[in-house]
Amino acid sequence: MENINQELDPLFNPRSVAVIGATKNWNKWGYSTFLSVLQGFKGNVYPINRNEKKVLGYVAYKKIGDVPEDVDLAIFVIPAENIPEVMEECAEKGVKAAVIISAGFRETGAEGRELEDRVVEAARKGGIRFVGPNCMGMWSASSDLRAYMFPLPTNPGPIAFVSQGGNVGAAVVMAAINRGTGFHRYVSCGATADIQIEDYIEYFAEDPNVKVILTYIEGLNDGTRFIEKVSKATIKKPVIALKPGKTEACAHAILSHSGAIAGVDDLYDEAFKKAGVIRADSPEELLDIAVCFLTQPLPPGRNVAIITGGGSYGVLCAEYCESNDLNVIDLPEETISAFNEIFPPRWSHGNPVDPAGDRNFIAYYMAPEMVLKLNEIDALIFMGFGSISGITNVIAGDDSMFFRPLPPSLTSLEGVDDVVHRIIEAIDSGDIEKTESLINPIVPIVASLLGSDPDTMSKFISMILSRDITRSMLKKIVSDVPDLLMRGASAMIGVLEEFDKLVSSLLFTLMKVYGKPIISTTFTETAPSLHGAAHAFPTAEKAAVVLSKLVEYREYLERVDAFEDPRKYCFILNNQLDYLI
Amino acid sequence: MENINQELDPLFNPRSVAVIGATKNWNKWGYSTFLSVLQGFKGNVYPINRNEKKVLGYVAYKKIGDVPEDVDLAIFVIPAENIPEVMEECAEKGVKAAVIISAGFRETGAEGRELEDRVVEAARKGGIRFVGPNCMGMWSASSDLRAYMFPLPTNPGPIAFVSQGGNVGAAVVMAAINRGTGFHRYVSCGATADIQIEDYIEYFAEDPNVKVILTYIEGLNDGTRFIEKVSKATIKKPVIALKPGKTEACAHAILSHSGAIAGVDDLYDEAFKKAGVIRADSPEELLDIAVCFLTQPLPPGRNVAIITGGGSYGVLCAEYCESNDLNVIDLPEETISAFNEIFPPRWSHGNPVDPAGDRNFIAYYMAPEMVLKLNEIDALIFMGFGSISGITNVIAGDDSMFFRPLPPSLTSLEGVDDVVHRIIEAIDSGDIEKTESLINPIVPIVASLLGSDPDTMSKFISMILSRDITRSMLKKIVSDVPDLLMRGASAMIGVLEEFDKLVSSLLFTLMKVYGKPIISTTFTETAPSLHGAAHAFPTAEKAAVVLSKLVEYREYLERVDAFEDPRKYCFILNNQLDYLI
Repeated sequence: MENINQELDPLFNPRSVAVIGATKNWNKWGYSTFLSVLQGFKGNVYPINRNEKKVLGYVAYKKIGDVPEDVDLAIFVIPAENIPEVMEECAEKGVKAAVIISAGFRETGAEGRELEDRVVEAARKGGIRFVGPNCMGMWSASSDLRAYMFPLPTNPGPIAFVSQGGNVGAAVVMAAINRGTGFHRYVSCGATADIQIEDYIEYFAEDPNVKVILTYIEGLNDGTRFIEKVSKATIKKPVIALKPGKTEACAHAILSHSGAIAGVDDLYDEAFKKAGVIRADSPEELLDIAVCFLTQPLPPGRNVAIITGGGSYGVLCAEYCESNDLNVIDLPEETISAFNEIFPPRWSHGNPVDPAGDRNFIAYYMAPEMVLKLNEIDALIFMGFGSISGITNVIAGDDSMFFRPLPPSLTSLEGVDDVVHRIIEAIDSGDIEKTESLINPIVPIVASLLGSDPDTMSKFISMILSRDITRSMLKKIVSDVPDLLMRGASAMIGVLEEFDKLVSSLLFTLMKVYGKPIISTTFTETAPSLHGAAHAFPTAEKAAVVLSKLVEYREYLERVDAFEDPRKYCFILNNQLDYLI
Repeated sequence: MENINQELDPLFNPRSVAVIGATKNWNKWGYSTFLSVLQGFKGNVYPINRNEKKVLGYVAYKKIGDVPEDVDLAIFVIPAENIPEVMEECAEKGVKAAVIISAGFRETGAEGRELEDRVVEAARKGGIRFVGPNCMGMWSASSDLRAYMFPLPTNPGPIAFVSQGGNVGAAVVMAAINRGTGFHRYVSCGATADIQIEDYIEYFAEDPNVKVILTYIEGLNDGTRFIEKVSKATIKKPVIALKPGKTEACAHAILSHSGAIAGVDDLYDEAFKKAGVIRADSPEELLDIAVCFLTQPLPPGRNVAIITGGGSYGVLCAEYCESNDLNVIDLPEETISAFNEIFPPRWSHGNPVDPAGDRNFIAYYMAPEMVLKLNEIDALIFMGFGSISGITNVIAGDDSMFFRPLPPSLTSLEGVDDVVHRIIEAIDSGDIEKTESLINPIVPIVASLLGSDPDTMSKFISMILSRDITRSMLKKIVSDVPDLLMRGASAMIGVLEEFDKLVSSLLFTLMKVYGKPIISTTFTETAPSLHGAAHAFPTAEKAAVVLSKLVEYREYLERVDAFEDPRKYCFILNNQLDYLI
């Protein structure tokens, strides 16, 4: 077999495409598939149809042999029984790759399997590699090729995904796009009569545009080959798999769905462990774990600190962590003392760190570094304060309840523009001491507005000023101040939104500096977003699960001596810090 | 002890309220608590503050004894150490109930416990029952009393909830309201120094406005008393509990949070089983199960049919069902034959029922009754087709891709108004035969538009016409036809939205007739809504979990000989069918 790139490139980067079965009859898959190809692909597209002369304005050809130019890729949306013959015609035409969307092969029984064998034979003879049959198709970002049975939303991104279920695939693709990330390749691989799941994974592993590989597997044709090929992929990047089939009813359903043999689940579990594949338990978890790898560094161990804005969520989070083999360890005496300085006497005095309804909110943002700098802490779960503005919105409903008119002392402040200008100049000059001396007189006013202690706030500002990224966020907030004062108390939401970005940049900085993950959560199961990874995981349970997968992967890499840098797979740390500034 | 209603009524239905610690200083909980009380409660409200003369426009009193009128309920937002003395003053004043939001009692150690004992003593002497301490407060729908530490969103509804965690409580309340349901009572019960969790549950069980009871428990003070009281509640309505504490780290966190002893998890599990309490594993699941009880009848057994719009989701759903002790049983031969009539040859020929990409969508809606009418099937999971319009929106993005211009034969149809008028008259007259004879000539046109088979559609229409609710939905769709034709092809989305309501009404009818649950899901983890329960559960896993809890509760009721009617707790079937029509 040739190099995998040469083999599969014509599939993902074809110069021209024929849709066999394209039709103007909108009640057929040949209609929506052709429409889907036309949406993005910029190369030549040829509809093949025995009866129609034109399809959606394109000249149609009776046979692929009639197409006057070369065709790299053929997409089949015709009845199964006609495919062997047309595949032979494709071979004659010099087609290099194919996608067979049509069903009616091995999943239907012995006759179907024989039909499938004839398709494979025709393709092999012509040197054609193909996706499917019995699949929904594929999407390739590099050519914007949507060889798919209906117009699926697309968004380019760092994920590659091969799914043996079309609906599971489509749902994960849509959910990923809703979370602000996207795909470099997505394949609904169907019955894998020719190209195997491990072939796609091998191909994705070679591609520098792919940062994380997802797969949904119903059954493998050759477990040994899978382990061999995928072991080479997992030392390059994370591979996350969803594989049902633990129960008899499920194995039965798999046979009639993809025609695959589900196999003994324990053997799969063993194979995945051997190959370093991370296992997910649901389509939702598959995506959660992918997002986690894209947004977090790999932690050095299993010891977790929890900082929580709500005691009961600290309780639940501790439970989920321990249930996922993470350790909620005791904090050293000096850290307890340090927290005594910034929290009220009623704080939890341990891990989870719970300030117990403290209104000195700024103290929460001092806490992450106080635990992350400890050698014995490998990761942080930061609950309920990753996004202040969102929480305020949810709780308040009517903002005016919280944001009473500003005190006259503030709205009538003269010379604000001048002070702001001088602070910005000081920040730009890099003179931190001067910046602090200009900001410090204002701290008590702002602290009183936010209900915070001025001393804590001064320390917080020093922390913010000490690093480039957070300093530039502070500059942005400062320059907005005159406008915010003009707009009165309702502008507080705007200030809090700016503050959210400051928090995000602080958390990113800490992740980068310490090479340890910070999994943030809110308390509500709202749609999380990749941007402002500050609340990438909505629930304590999800936070614990994804964190345990980061640990598992790092332990695997260290075991096979392939660990390099905790930040290697963290797409956001490596690529997208810009959006914060 | 008196009757529980007499004991707790002054708490949930007070005539007047004093907020001890109310303040105009917006950085204190006394500010936001007072604001919260003012939002809804219509009785007299008195701020008590030693230093302020007025609070938010209300005359403030130095002591509760200074209030010129009777005070039924006192809300404490003052430092813990002052509470024993003020509680004595409340007793002298004749206050009947209290909510102690303040923390700093047993959760802080021995001194705190002693302080708590003094509060209890003062309250007992004065006959005052109280919530807390160390809690967020409570909400009562009957008096719109928001005795809560910040303005929480409220919505009246059939749920009662007592939570030993304020943040878990607030998050579940907000999530429930987002799902379109609401609360009759919500209590953040804190350290339960006086009123115990089982007291609240006993009180809620007596209240006919409450259909389902939720609780989050960190630790019980008296397990035997809990079992005794709650056993009496669970024969009246479902009680669903979230109780962490399986792990040591969690038990440790509980001690410093609520001061409760987490106890041995196995004992709790046994106690819950004995008392018929349904156990949830997360705050999200607590609400999922509640919504399920409110929207579904109790199934007669564990045998499930799955109908799926996507084979891979059928596979996953079968796995989740079996993992939750539900049986995905084989279908009888005559049902397989019946499906052979309406599905293409490639359909799955078994359970899960997967038509494998059939475009004859109407057939999916024939399928539910074909399985529900079987004695051996106890429940249905209906995947991916509970909401057609939503799915179309998600997939298409740009509607115009799917909805090409209507054929001229349709837009130029003369006499449409007349035909529509005659159909409506026939429906109103109850003459089903005549209605069918008027509709049948139009069926081939509509079927071709939807890509469906005309014969299946005729059968579907007969099914719809045979029942009052679905018939009136069809009437609504028919009367919209002229307008839809005027608006052209883009109006197809409108037709599909109407069709969704028709499907919902069909599913509700089947649930009512057969007394078996139909759990619908979409394939995306989007926010589910209670209205159009057609997609109440977004994932296959959640569908299986909640269904298993319905079975568990019915089995309990039958074991203790308290089972009456499968539809008894199904709030939607009993109360809200109107919204569909």
